[in-house]
Amino acid sequence: MTRGCRAKVFEAFKNQGHRTAGAVAVLQGGTSAMFEYYDSDTDIDVFRQEAYFRYLFGINEPDCFGALDLQREEAILFVEQQSEASQRWNGNLRPLEFFQQRYGVDHVYYTHQLQQVLADRGYEYVYTLQGTNTDSGLAVKTEAQLPFLAESVTRDRATLLPLLAECRVIKTPLEVEHLRRACLLSSQAHVYVMRHVQSGMNERQLEALFQAFTRYYGGCRHMSYTCICGSGPNGAILHYGHAGAPNDKPIAEHEMVVLDMGAEFTGYSTDITLSYPIRGIFSDDQRMVYQGVLKAQKAVFAAMRPGVSWVDMHRLAERTIIEHLMEAGLLHNGTVEQMMQAYVGAIFMPHGLGHLLGLNVHDVGGFLEGAVRQKGPGIQYLRTSRNLKAGMVLTVEPGIYFNDPLLDAALANPEQAQFINNDVLQRFRGFGGVRLEDDVLVTETGVENFTIVPREIEDIEEVFRLRQARN
Amino acid sequence: MTRGCRAKVFEAFKNQGHRTAGAVAVLQGGTSAMFEYYDSDTDIDVFRQEAYFRYLFGINEPDCFGALDLQREEAILFVEQQSEASQRWNGNLRPLEFFQQRYGVDHVYYTHQLQQVLADRGYEYVYTLQGTNTDSGLAVKTEAQLPFLAESVTRDRATLLPLLAECRVIKTPLEVEHLRRACLLSSQAHVYVMRHVQSGMNERQLEALFQAFTRYYGGCRHMSYTCICGSGPNGAILHYGHAGAPNDKPIAEHEMVVLDMGAEFTGYSTDITLSYPIRGIFSDDQRMVYQGVLKAQKAVFAAMRPGVSWVDMHRLAERTIIEHLMEAGLLHNGTVEQMMQAYVGAIFMPHGLGHLLGLNVHDVGGFLEGAVRQKGPGIQYLRTSRNLKAGMVLTVEPGIYFNDPLLDAALANPEQAQFINNDVLQRFRGFGGVRLEDDVLVTETGVENFTIVPREIEDIEEVFRLRQARN
Ligand SMILES: [Mn+2]
Ligand SMILES: [Mn+2]
Repeated sequence: MTRGCRAKVFEAFKNQGHRTAGAVAVLQGGTSAMFEYYDSDTDIDVFRQEAYFRYLFGINEPDCFGALDLQREEAILFVEQQSEASQRWNGNLRPLEFFQQRYGVDHVYYTHQLQQVLADRGYEYVYTLQGTNTDSGLAVKTEAQLPFLAESVTRDRATLLPLLAECRVIKTPLEVEHLRRACLLSSQAHVYVMRHVQSGMNERQLEALFQAFTRYYGGCRHMSYTCICGSGPNGAILHYGHAGAPNDKPIAEHEMVVLDMGAEFTGYSTDITLSYPIRGIFSDDQRMVYQGVLKAQKAVFAAMRPGVSWVDMHRLAERTIIEHLMEAGLLHNGTVEQMMQAYVGAIFMPHGLGHLLGLNVHDVGGFLEGAVRQKGPGIQYLRTSRNLKAGMVLTVEPGIYFNDPLLDAALANPEQAQFINNDVLQRFRGFGGVRLEDDVLVTETGVENFTIVPREIEDIEEVFRLRQARN
Repeated sequence: MTRGCRAKVFEAFKNQGHRTAGAVAVLQGGTSAMFEYYDSDTDIDVFRQEAYFRYLFGINEPDCFGALDLQREEAILFVEQQSEASQRWNGNLRPLEFFQQRYGVDHVYYTHQLQQVLADRGYEYVYTLQGTNTDSGLAVKTEAQLPFLAESVTRDRATLLPLLAECRVIKTPLEVEHLRRACLLSSQAHVYVMRHVQSGMNERQLEALFQAFTRYYGGCRHMSYTCICGSGPNGAILHYGHAGAPNDKPIAEHEMVVLDMGAEFTGYSTDITLSYPIRGIFSDDQRMVYQGVLKAQKAVFAAMRPGVSWVDMHRLAERTIIEHLMEAGLLHNGTVEQMMQAYVGAIFMPHGLGHLLGLNVHDVGGFLEGAVRQKGPGIQYLRTSRNLKAGMVLTVEPGIYFNDPLLDAALANPEQAQFINNDVLQRFRGFGGVRLEDDVLVTETGVENFTIVPREIEDIEEVFRLRQARN
């Protein structure tokens, strides 16, 4: 698995003309200390490897180092040596050959040998991982500290991060296969939830059903992100589900649910959202909103192919949603163009259309060096402004929401208010929202959709009908 | 809930003669930054509050401060002010009164008002939380930094931690009720697992079933610790289940499973272990080992009451296990006393008998200042050496394991080897182990067992029999 990723990285070093002679890239993996749960000896959660380290070395255990010998094109893994006494706690000692075989690396040593191994191999140029994640704005937390390096060794802290990020943007065939399987599993889990929901359930039970499936059938110990299970008005809260709003509302008979849940499978993230009425039958209003989002998603799928700008796709989704809301009578008194210029789309879809997906749910490489971020409501939240390339994996997640603070702000803004038919809008106060989020691969000719869930209204209603037939 | 805890803390300040005039204790809660998942904008896991902060202020949201006015006996909560723009992500702004009502504190302000509020209230003496957790050996990570305090204000960093730790050792009636319910839920989840296991399942599916139950029926989003689901030989690995050994072995027909799993419920931890043969019928050898552990657990329950030393309880468990293994012919050629002196008990039970339980699974207060830690195999791992008091909650978790490295070391040590009947021992190589772990409250007259699971062999076998009857 990681062999294919490393081959790409070795190639990138050469193609981009970076020094490889006598050169090594040294990375530190995630540490146990990063998972400490305050001052207790338990962990916040089971350890999960840092994504760049996992990309290159595959191992999901803490306190490792790894090195890429860029001249010999070899991978060297350094693992923590366990004590004899630790065996009662952690299991029998594993020989170094175990790690070499399991992770397909060229050499394995103990971490206490790092200094010696680097010295013995005579490196004169050392790359380490440093810089800012363009998606989160956070700095890399795992740069290998190598205080023992001789003065004569050149240290390069600028090259590695953007090079690796760019490699991760275009998935290898094996990565594609992992993501395809991960999305299939989370898709099936969403259908499992759909087959078991009932009004009167609490939102958190939908989260529980999703996790039950992915844990039981996939062995998934981690979600890609906190589950979002918003019912009724909560569907309009984009990051609902956090500790302050922990998916804890009972779901009423007439409500929509917005279920944004994805499990991490074999290290790869998924990010899938379904929206449907809890009773399995769409009302006219629910149907109207849903169809608008589905139209937007289909329009984007039809337009996606290599070379297309992601910013244009965002605008296409907004435009499709505006047209649909005009047909529905919720927007009026203007042309699509006028409404686009007044950012009317962002009143209803106040987030970006989608983002890169991979080892991280908001995957790296969204903004190349010097890339200009979009300005303006909604579109400013786009996590990438790139042109599509074959091998990219992205989420496509248009939505229509009725978020009171945003609606009130729009009605108070004459430039937007003129286009809103408030008589119609009133009916949708408290509706919540609809988001449809699929994970797709950009192919040479278009997209392959990894998300396999009922999307047409008839298909969703049929799942519920068949369910009742069995009772 | 936290009102009762705070009343105890105010009382302790007075009783112990600490300064309360013009004095305030200021605590910081857990921060979002502590849950950052490397450099990504997702979290390691859903936020969980730091235990001392939760004890005093109840709130399970990040980036708060709290203050106890020790003279007026008031609680003041400081919450992060949300921006208007954040509402699309996190939900509608909540007024300060919301927090005051929900958490039953006396005053609520925004965190940016902390300096002003402390100044306005004219404190001259400030306690903050600093020191080492005697259980983990780790330092408190959340001490409130108050760089703005005037020079004239005295800062006391020594008093608060041991005072609060001691308060947490003896549970309030409401804490007892929470722990009782938490243990009932995790007990029921263990029975749910027992009703669904089959040989051929993977260990991780048992973890999945346990979490499915506690998440679905209890809304538990956190386990108290990483699930340990060891089958066959893995049952002898005490902290099995970590990222390097992630409960991933298929379970064979003849094997025992050791299932150490507990969910966190309303903030309180549970810690429960069941051990049984996967096919639901005990072989003679499995019965022998199991009965030894059950005898030890019963002996400890019968002896526990206020005033009794926990170290003596550990020794009682070891002694009971040694006597049992002598009866079974696995130990010979000596008296119980001789074997106790040679630490033969620790060959088979290489861990402490149990630990305090509360907001943390390894709860605080296990060692009072100046307390002497036990030395010697097994007993050195005791997490407390205290005498029992009514209101303490502890785990009682004796075990018998067959851990190859420990057995080999014992056989290589003439002082221990003389007592081991290796002909009999051979039969148990690869057996794994048995641990029985209950969570109990020390009462005025003995214990109340919060753990309600089948413990007698007949009861376990009956669960499996009834299960088949339904198929
Ligand atoms: Mn997404
Ligand atoms: Mn325990």
